[in-house]
Amino acid sequence: MIKVGIVGGTGYTGVELLRLLLRHPGAQVEVITSRGEAGRRLDDLFPTLRGHCDLAFTDPAAADLGRCDVVFFATPHNVALKTVPGLIAAGLRVIDLSADYRLKDIAVWEHWYGEAHTSPELAQQAVYGLPEVNRQAIASAQLVACAGCYPTSVQLGFLPLLAAGVIDPQRLIASSASGVSGAGRQGKIDNLLTEAGDSMKAYGVAGHRHLPEIEQGLRAMLPGADGADVSLTFVPHLAPMSRGIHSTLFATLTDTATDLQALFESHYANEPFVDVLPAGTLPQTRSVRGANTCQLAVNRPQGRDVVVVTAVIDNLVKGAAGQAVQAMNLMFNLPETAGLEVIALIP
Amino acid sequence: MIKVGIVGGTGYTGVELLRLLLRHPGAQVEVITSRGEAGRRLDDLFPTLRGHCDLAFTDPAAADLGRCDVVFFATPHNVALKTVPGLIAAGLRVIDLSADYRLKDIAVWEHWYGEAHTSPELAQQAVYGLPEVNRQAIASAQLVACAGCYPTSVQLGFLPLLAAGVIDPQRLIASSASGVSGAGRQGKIDNLLTEAGDSMKAYGVAGHRHLPEIEQGLRAMLPGADGADVSLTFVPHLAPMSRGIHSTLFATLTDTATDLQALFESHYANEPFVDVLPAGTLPQTRSVRGANTCQLAVNRPQGRDVVVVTAVIDNLVKGAAGQAVQAMNLMFNLPETAGLEVIALIP
Amino acid sequence: MIKVGIVGGTGYTGVELLRLLLRHPGAQVEVITSRGEAGRRLDDLFPTLRGHCDLAFTDPAAADLGRCDVVFFATPHNVALKTVPGLIAAGLRVIDLSADYRLKDIAVWEHWYGEAHTSPELAQQAVYGLPEVNRQAIASAQLVACAGCYPTSVQLGFLPLLAAGVIDPQRLIASSASGVSGAGRQGKIDNLLTEAGDSMKAYGVAGHRHLPEIEQGLRAMLPGADGADVSLTFVPHLAPMSRGIHSTLFATLTDTATDLQALFESHYANEPFVDVLPAGTLPQTRSVRGANTCQLAVNRPQGRDVVVVTAVIDNLVKGAAGQAVQAMNLMFNLPETAGLEVIALIP
Amino acid sequence: MIKVGIVGGTGYTGVELLRLLLRHPGAQVEVITSRGEAGRRLDDLFPTLRGHCDLAFTDPAAADLGRCDVVFFATPHNVALKTVPGLIAAGLRVIDLSADYRLKDIAVWEHWYGEAHTSPELAQQAVYGLPEVNRQAIASAQLVACAGCYPTSVQLGFLPLLAAGVIDPQRLIASSASGVSGAGRQGKIDNLLTEAGDSMKAYGVAGHRHLPEIEQGLRAMLPGADGADVSLTFVPHLAPMSRGIHSTLFATLTDTATDLQALFESHYANEPFVDVLPAGTLPQTRSVRGANTCQLAVNRPQGRDVVVVTAVIDNLVKGAAGQAVQAMNLMFNLPETAGLEVIALIP
Repeated sequence: MIKVGIVGGTGYTGVELLRLLLRHPGAQVEVITSRGEAGRRLDDLFPTLRGHCDLAFTDPAAADLGRCDVVFFATPHNVALKTVPGLIAAGLRVIDLSADYRLKDIAVWEHWYGEAHTSPELAQQAVYGLPEVNRQAIASAQLVACAGCYPTSVQLGFLPLLAAGVIDPQRLIASSASGVSGAGRQGKIDNLLTEAGDSMKAYGVAGHRHLPEIEQGLRAMLPGADGADVSLTFVPHLAPMSRGIHSTLFATLTDTATDLQALFESHYANEPFVDVLPAGTLPQTRSVRGANTCQLAVNRPQGRDVVVVTAVIDNLVKGAAGQAVQAMNLMFNLPETAGLEVIALIP
Repeated sequence: MIKVGIVGGTGYTGVELLRLLLRHPGAQVEVITSRGEAGRRLDDLFPTLRGHCDLAFTDPAAADLGRCDVVFFATPHNVALKTVPGLIAAGLRVIDLSADYRLKDIAVWEHWYGEAHTSPELAQQAVYGLPEVNRQAIASAQLVACAGCYPTSVQLGFLPLLAAGVIDPQRLIASSASGVSGAGRQGKIDNLLTEAGDSMKAYGVAGHRHLPEIEQGLRAMLPGADGADVSLTFVPHLAPMSRGIHSTLFATLTDTATDLQALFESHYANEPFVDVLPAGTLPQTRSVRGANTCQLAVNRPQGRDVVVVTAVIDNLVKGAAGQAVQAMNLMFNLPETAGLEVIALIP
Repeated sequence: MIKVGIVGGTGYTGVELLRLLLRHPGAQVEVITSRGEAGRRLDDLFPTLRGHCDLAFTDPAAADLGRCDVVFFATPHNVALKTVPGLIAAGLRVIDLSADYRLKDIAVWEHWYGEAHTSPELAQQAVYGLPEVNRQAIASAQLVACAGCYPTSVQLGFLPLLAAGVIDPQRLIASSASGVSGAGRQGKIDNLLTEAGDSMKAYGVAGHRHLPEIEQGLRAMLPGADGADVSLTFVPHLAPMSRGIHSTLFATLTDTATDLQALFESHYANEPFVDVLPAGTLPQTRSVRGANTCQLAVNRPQGRDVVVVTAVIDNLVKGAAGQAVQAMNLMFNLPETAGLEVIALIP
Repeated sequence: MIKVGIVGGTGYTGVELLRLLLRHPGAQVEVITSRGEAGRRLDDLFPTLRGHCDLAFTDPAAADLGRCDVVFFATPHNVALKTVPGLIAAGLRVIDLSADYRLKDIAVWEHWYGEAHTSPELAQQAVYGLPEVNRQAIASAQLVACAGCYPTSVQLGFLPLLAAGVIDPQRLIASSASGVSGAGRQGKIDNLLTEAGDSMKAYGVAGHRHLPEIEQGLRAMLPGADGADVSLTFVPHLAPMSRGIHSTLFATLTDTATDLQALFESHYANEPFVDVLPAGTLPQTRSVRGANTCQLAVNRPQGRDVVVVTAVIDNLVKGAAGQAVQAMNLMFNLPETAGLEVIALIP
């Protein structure tokens, strides 16, 4: 059994990691830390875990992470970069669900996160954790920087088109909507049921931290990569739901002869967690609620030269905890789907 | 007092018309028809009306609409076109909230609505009911074809840009999300709380009836109109909320020197129901819940050449019943805001 | 025009007072205070008010409340009791929406609110603001302590039964559910959409601050009041909705011959804001959303000796701001319904 | 592997059975019938099942149920009673999730379901499927009539109190709230998001089909059963959520010396799916979303003689499909928890 540590277990990503890992056939959660809840039983904070887990939160200062094989970071940004270097030096493997090691361009990271990056060399070493792009590298990585939630949905949607070179990479548009759990388990007025319920809004239109991450990922998908660049307009929205991301992607076709449905189906034919829907159907976020699946559809409205991809994920699973477990499976040579064969919960 | 008739009063548009007209200082609802609910008191079907209204539904066959000054049609499509001609011939004024008279190109209408249009000459005579574009024509119209819900939000968002000639009209994109009330008050499985709740999906990507209406409207906004055309990619979504439309619009700037905030503010300076938000803020649908207002924001992310407009309306008010009352006010020379000075309901 | 001041205007009760008072034909909001938001325009905090109000929040220390005819307190408990005495001494009239002056028994108040009551003599002088019980006294009161939200629904439901002496006052049960807005506009984790959404829970079962208020009110309804007492088991619940209270009341009939429907209808025959539904129908909270109405139904399941009353109000209107405006109307000799003839918003 | 058939698989109970059985280590779904969807792949109707199931619906007339070891009925009432007799005669075992065989008193069944019961002798033979009461009998039963959703929550809440003889069985009250999925997957206006959303209502106050089932179950719990009877006032409510039942139970203590917390904890000490929460905490429906658990709390407000029990279940799991699988496990001598060790999904 893989011995697992979790740093930062009181948020939604943390409890979702627990939901998956406590039922994982090849992993065992050994320690989970929280500064604020140290000493408290997990199932007292999260009654869903009653009968499934006897652990209590450990103070990070006192936690013996050294006995773990792998440590997950489910922390806000700017936390992992302070603790990860020591674990890496001690030979542990680390899966960071935060944004700390996602960007290769440190100046860009520091611009968006407003702080000096204190372990920039690890940012170079880190493998970007999107298995559908980086499967091999993840398997042998010591440090994986898991893809963000919006970035996962946007990149998986554009990937077949960019890899095939059939769209203009300079005029990409992504209009995405996330459930409120994407904002974390914090007491902010904006995310009250009375504020976020029964309403829809865009946010971060002028600039969102996920934009450089997505553009970095899309750029790496370009065939040839001969200096070409990508340009994405990304507008995230808050939708009045708990879980789920729905991304609607627009691009201009440079090649209108391609059979887009066939392109998508063949590109993802062997992916266990990317599901191209049959022509004529469209995905909805509920169909992946609790599951590690990305469901996709591709359309070309009115036969014009604009392609529309719609992609859904559960932001807490394929957009966070599930993707992290998928990375762990790859890193420890387990079946990639181990512990992730969960059927989505409807209604 | 204007004597008002309503044909088709059992849907959400119908009850919303009643909410506004029953408190309108210059109008009096005389008759309201329903085939299925004839004889039933309105406040039995809609307990919100208890104490506000003593009317019962009248069978359409028996309804004496001739004593009305104006008749609203809150019917599914393909209904108004059968009854309106007689009312017009009798000299009544008609405000049609359905799609029957919105399109000037009858062949296009027949394509999308799958039926022969039996009063095409009235479609030519009808004035498109978007006051911010057609105020004068509405005032003197005998037949007003109210703008649809999505079309209102998309057209008001693009209008200042198209009128100023600062965007490429051939590469327009609209990603819109509607609350479930847009689907009407019908017992369809897809719109159950257990199906539409806590989920997000696109629909009609391959083609939506509102597309030709919007493109027709946008085309009319082009300055010069020298044969130029518009091309819009329109993707509607169903959001897990009751009311509201949020439209996120993308266009390519052909002139990047324009002060977009100033352009929008000056364009809508005198409009009572279009509210350009201050720079740096973004609209949310809840802020117009129950109100006849369209709130708008304009952004140019990262200073690139893509402009993003976000626009919100209440689909049942500015997108339907409120807009219809606004048209009535214009047609009968009342203050345009009469009966519409309602403050949105939050939380 | 009555000159109105509002102390504490940044919560849901405050913005609801504004929605009603800004459209009230006989009142004018002159000043509204907030410690945290002093200087900020109201419509910046609440975009629903754009176009309806040019006021900014005033710092309480600087606010000239003396020029007002009446001051509403929409503050958390323990605030009004410090400021109200000065206003009363200055001859102003005060309508307190908080709990500070609701209880006559100061020891009970201090037990539940955990603080010394610094103006107990005013608590004796204050008139309990439930017009259906205290209409005359409210009209001539200088200080009105508005009834709470749960207490309004429970008292209006039991009133006809207690007044008629047909139930055992010692075995009363109230199972009530409130929307999340009852918890106020504060950044608490428990009230996030991700916590309170799609879930139901009881709270405060061991004891809730509204219990002594309700029992005090019910006691006053007993005919004769010859030393008899009431005993209520009160269980509040949090329901996954924004607005509304649904109270389900149970009592044992001591007289099973009474026509309960007739009893309720005759008791409330002249009340503008209490609506006894026809036999065979049941109320739902949506039917009073945004309205000042309490809708009620009375049933005797299986003809046994237990009577069940179901009562709904909008917690922010009849349970707070609307009831306060109703009290103001009475105090200033306006029509009791002035500014309150709002039709509920569905869907 | 147990060979499983499912009759009626297009509703919420059906898809929930599939979610559990497709991942069950000891069962294999062989056939699933639907009259309306015969020939359609399951994962076309339910995209959540893509990748998990290759079955298509079979027409009931053509279905070879004879090769199954056990057949689940997830049908509306009045369906099972026509098909079950043949299966029983053929020696199959049957688990009926509908109400057809729950009541022993056929006259009462016929009164509430409005139809002649065509296999009354099987109703006598059927074992009531509430494992916490009938574990042994279920294990050896050929026909199990699973307990309903409301009845499960109410009976598990009252059971320790009735079995210990510490409450008055003649004055029981249950105020329960259910999510909308309890109404099934049918296109009814009342259950639209626009109708049931953001609202709360009671229904069936005058009489609900679950009342006789609950009273029959409670009666059987009485110690001695010497002619004593139970009387329950049961009020169900519709809450604006998808899943979950919250029952709030009230009873009069005849013995106020009992340590109620200890009573509940000891009564349920060995139950895998009934979880008595620690004193001072209260259950919420989200904590059991997707899980087969009933969480319970017991309180005695103000130390008076009324006991309040709050109980939550997922109506589709412990209230339907999960309970049915639990029965199957007992019947086939599998571990009772097989396939049911699912952790609830939050947020």
